[in-house]
Formats: sequence, structure tokens, C-alpha cells
Amino acid sequence: MNMKKQGLLIVVSGPSGTGKGTVCDELLKAHPEIAYSISATTRSPREGEKDGENYYFLKKEQFEQMINRGELLEWANVYGNYYGTPLKKIQEKLSDGQDILLEIDTQGAMNVQKKFPEGLYIFLLPPSLKTLEERIRGRGSETDESLKRRLGNAVNEIEVGKNYNYVVVNDTVDAAVKRIAMVIDAEHRRVVRNMDLFEKLENEKKLNYGA
Amino acid sequence: MNMKKQGLLIVVSGPSGTGKGTVCDELLKAHPEIAYSISATTRSPREGEKDGENYYFLKKEQFEQMINRGELLEWANVYGNYYGTPLKKIQEKLSDGQDILLEIDTQGAMNVQKKFPEGLYIFLLPPSLKTLEERIRGRGSETDESLKRRLGNAVNEIEVGKNYNYVVVNDTVDAAVKRIAMVIDAEHRRVVRNMDLFEKLENEKKLNYGA
Repeated sequence: MNMKKQGLLIVVSGPSGTGKGTVCDELLKAHPEIAYSISATTRSPREGEKDGENYYFLKKEQFEQMINRGELLEWANVYGNYYGTPLKKIQEKLSDGQDILLEIDTQGAMNVQKKFPEGLYIFLLPPSLKTLEERIRGRGSETDESLKRRLGNAVNEIEVGKNYNYVVVNDTVDAAVKRIAMVIDAEHRRVVRNMDLFEKLENEKKLNYGA
Repeated sequence: MNMKKQGLLIVVSGPSGTGKGTVCDELLKAHPEIAYSISATTRSPREGEKDGENYYFLKKEQFEQMINRGELLEWANVYGNYYGTPLKKIQEKLSDGQDILLEIDTQGAMNVQKKFPEGLYIFLLPPSLKTLEERIRGRGSETDESLKRRLGNAVNEIEVGKNYNYVVVNDTVDAAVKRIAMVIDAEHRRVVRNMDLFEKLENEKKLNYGA
């Protein structure tokens, strides 16, 4: 019997402003063996964005059909635009033994966790709220009002992290990437994911050392 | 409140001849921050062995007193000599936040797991039974009879590994050490072991961002 190893669904999430986008980009650069889960959206492509690369750009009717057919792992409607995670692509890659990274906000991650508890849930934390504030400010485009709101939301989001499997502090991108990579490697060593190793030795025993 | 982090009890075990002694020695060399759990025994010290370094050398009466007082995490009587793991030293170091490595046979590890399920159980596998046979042969001192018995036992022991948390193949010592180190690092990132990080941010929130 040839038991093909399932890939891991790696969900990286964290409060807004924690820098999960940068960390995930660098993780994928350092680990090209990990695939990236591409979201579907009904918003218009921005300049330079490519269908099937940055997003799957869908019409509203197509997206709603996917919702109705249960073809999305999670979805949300943000200011009139749909965003979601197509399930089929993920399942195909996982069956193929490939790890997939899903970078997603805390709300989305919570919904994914309900449907896919066997995933690997990694929560990215800022080293301090002060750092988080500086990062949100650094984006520049914020008014004082919206900055306050975003920071308040982020602080509330932190609590959610207690439901994850692992927590990684994003003090430097490089360190955070290395820590996440170690968590992924360790998860691959779990006994439940390595029954093929036992099976191999049992077969060798039957063949060469008597039953 | 200052929540001191507990250390991890890292149990490395595996079939006889898998090379767990060498792997553990190299792991400790590469990671001097990990303490080693010293066993107690009633056998006589061999040349060069030091009390409190290689073993705690005890008299039979002292050892039996420890058994009766429940002061051993596990113990066994092998050909008339007692061997066991003193519990108190381990508890002290864990409370102090220090990781402790316990290298132990599969029988002992099973007993430890019953008493200490929160430990980290890592099973070392040989890449093949052929390799295992060569390693046992390589020790030289075996008769054909005892080699056969040892190999048979080792093969039966492999099944036990399915009850562990992680499995690491000892194809090369260096690779096995690195994999174990990654598992230990990852375990330290588990959310349950990092509630202090959440607490720190919650305190910062109360102090600087209003309750």
C-alpha cells in the first residue's frame, strides 16, 4: 500500500498591522516548496494585478454561486466586495502532499478553523502595542480617527490568538519567518503524519525478518 | 503577576540500536541550555564514572526507599540492579523554566508517559531494519544468538512509537539532532506555553490604551 502524505494547511493570521503580509511573503521566498492559497474576489483588479496570481477575479454571480455550492472555505463581504478562499484548489494540493499557506485576517481564520480543524494555526503577535501603533502610523494613509479605531480593533483581536496552535512574535521579519518554518517542520514530524515510516519498517520486517 | 514559564520534559526514546545515546549527546552539546536528567542506579560505578554526573549511585536500601516514597518517575530492575529517574530534580528544573532531556528505553518511556503526559515524546527510528542490524552487529560484542534476539526485540519496539508525539528518523546524527531541535523550538511556540505574551500585551493595553 502506498500512503501518500497529506500536505499541511498552514494558516497565518494576527491582528491588523502585525506584518503578516511581509512575513508570509518572505516565508514563501525562503520556502518555495510551500504553495500559496490564492483568494477569490469580486473587486476590480488593481494595476498590475493578474487573475490567478494575485486573486481569482470573479463576477458577483460567480462568487455567489460558489457560496451556494459550498465551494468556499470562508468568505466575507467587505464594503460591497466579496472575498473568499476557494476550497477545491486547497484540497487538490493537500492531497498531492503539498503544504499550502493561507494568510488571512483573524475573522476569516476563525471560520477556517471551524471547517478545517486539522490545519496548522499560527498567530503572529506584535512585540508590543507600541510597535503595532508605530506600524499602523507608518502606513501613513490613516487619519487620527481611523488609526485609533484600527488600533482598538487590533488590540481586541489579540485575544482570539489563544485559540490557535502556535504563537510567533514578529520582532524581526527574519526571526519570525525562521520560527514559523521550524513550526512547520516540527508538524511534519508528528507521529500521526508519519504512519508510512512505521509501515515501511513493518513491510521490511515481513520481507526480510519473518512475520 | 509574573508567570514563570515551565520548562519542557523532552523524552527521547526508540528501539535498542537506533543510536539514541549518540543523538542525545550531540543534542546536548549543540544545545547546552537543555539539562540532562541523571538516572539513579544501584549498580557499581564503572571506571571513570562520577556520582551525580553519569548516575546517582545509590545503595539498594536508598533506592527502595525512593520507590516506596514515590520519588521516582519510573524505575526498573535489570538483572538485579535498579535503575530509575528521580522525580524531584526534574520538577525543580522544570519549575525553573529549564528544559530537561530524558533518554530512556521504550519500556521506561511508556511508564513516564503515563505519569507525565504533558512531556514531549520523541521517537527515534532507524532508516531501515537493515541499518539497525548493522548497528547492532557493529557493537561487536554480540553472539549470533543475542543479536537475533536484540533485533527481534527492536522490531517489536517500533510499534510502541505510534504512541509518541513526534517521530524522527536517525539517518545521520546531525540531521536527527537538527530535527529534534526544531521540534523542541516549535513546542515552545505553542499557545498554551505562551500565555505570558498575551498577558504582557493586555497589561500594556490597560496601562497605555485604556481598559
